[in-house]
Amino acid sequence: MALETMQDLLIHQLQDIYSAEQQLTKALPKLQEKASTEELATAFGAHLAETKNQVTRLDQVFKILGEQPGGVKCKAMEGLIEETNEILEEDGNESVIDAGIIAAAQRVEHYEVSAYGSAKAFAALLGLSDVVELLNESQQEETAADKKLSLIATTEVNARAAGTDPSMAAKAL
Amino acid sequence: MALETMQDLLIHQLQDIYSAEQQLTKALPKLQEKASTEELATAFGAHLAETKNQVTRLDQVFKILGEQPGGVKCKAMEGLIEETNEILEEDGNESVIDAGIIAAAQRVEHYEVSAYGSAKAFAALLGLSDVVELLNESQQEETAADKKLSLIATTEVNARAAGTDPSMAAKAL
Repeated sequence: MALETMQDLLIHQLQDIYSAEQQLTKALPKLQEKASTEELATAFGAHLAETKNQVTRLDQVFKILGEQPGGVKCKAMEGLIEETNEILEEDGNESVIDAGIIAAAQRVEHYEVSAYGSAKAFAALLGLSDVVELLNESQQEETAADKKLSLIATTEVNARAAGTDPSMAAKAL
Repeated sequence: MALETMQDLLIHQLQDIYSAEQQLTKALPKLQEKASTEELATAFGAHLAETKNQVTRLDQVFKILGEQPGGVKCKAMEGLIEETNEILEEDGNESVIDAGIIAAAQRVEHYEVSAYGSAKAFAALLGLSDVVELLNESQQEETAADKKLSLIATTEVNARAAGTDPSMAAKAL
């Protein structure tokens, strides 16, 4: 596919995001299952529901544009998920692994915030306000998911994980 | 490697970032070369110099921690770079391709901002203030690189790329 026009680029971006979200719907249940606390598992479960809804929103976008969603494999999300799976397979302390899973998931959210941001900018330039609105809803959900994970990390997981470090435990005495 | 302590996780995160930055030092010259405007090429050139300096900063961090930087391959950055290379290989309009390169590069910057953010949080919990300071400098550079790319896109590249779209051109009349 040649990138002759901004519309070509927008379609390519949307196909990339579509692939990314679909890969993520398969990856999130594993994070939910591995999470050692109810709060973290619930957060991943809620984001799985959002992600499925984001796929539906993208279907609407493709319908508006009269284009097909398939044909692109998002290599970046493939790598991001491989990295997440590496953490899932590690042995160790469950709070440390939780902190690692959150770090991996936040990289995914940051990736998606950026991807929706670019697609939104391209759609806006093409005057596609209904597309912009749909992409904006998903981008806001990604931003909120990232903030939620930060909150769980800073209020709960990280301190427990840091308690595993002898020097830190010594400082806490 | 087992993730028994927060220090284990911090080292793992830093090794991942080290691999990411090293991969990026090899990828950025291709973006610089493909960019169709002097301003965009200069931005990638400047970020290449920053990235090399970020590797040096990470060497300092590993020295402080008495650890080695190697041993982890950042799969996410591998995927992000593959995605960037796909855009570089596309045929088409040079402004549209510039817009696509910027979108890919911003995904990379977002990834790195998140990665440095997690590593910084873990180092802070371990009381490693000198490590936090070094990671913070690099994170600020990544944030600034992302903003710079947004500026180039919105003030210059995107409008030229959108001018390639017939419906957009019609609206502009």
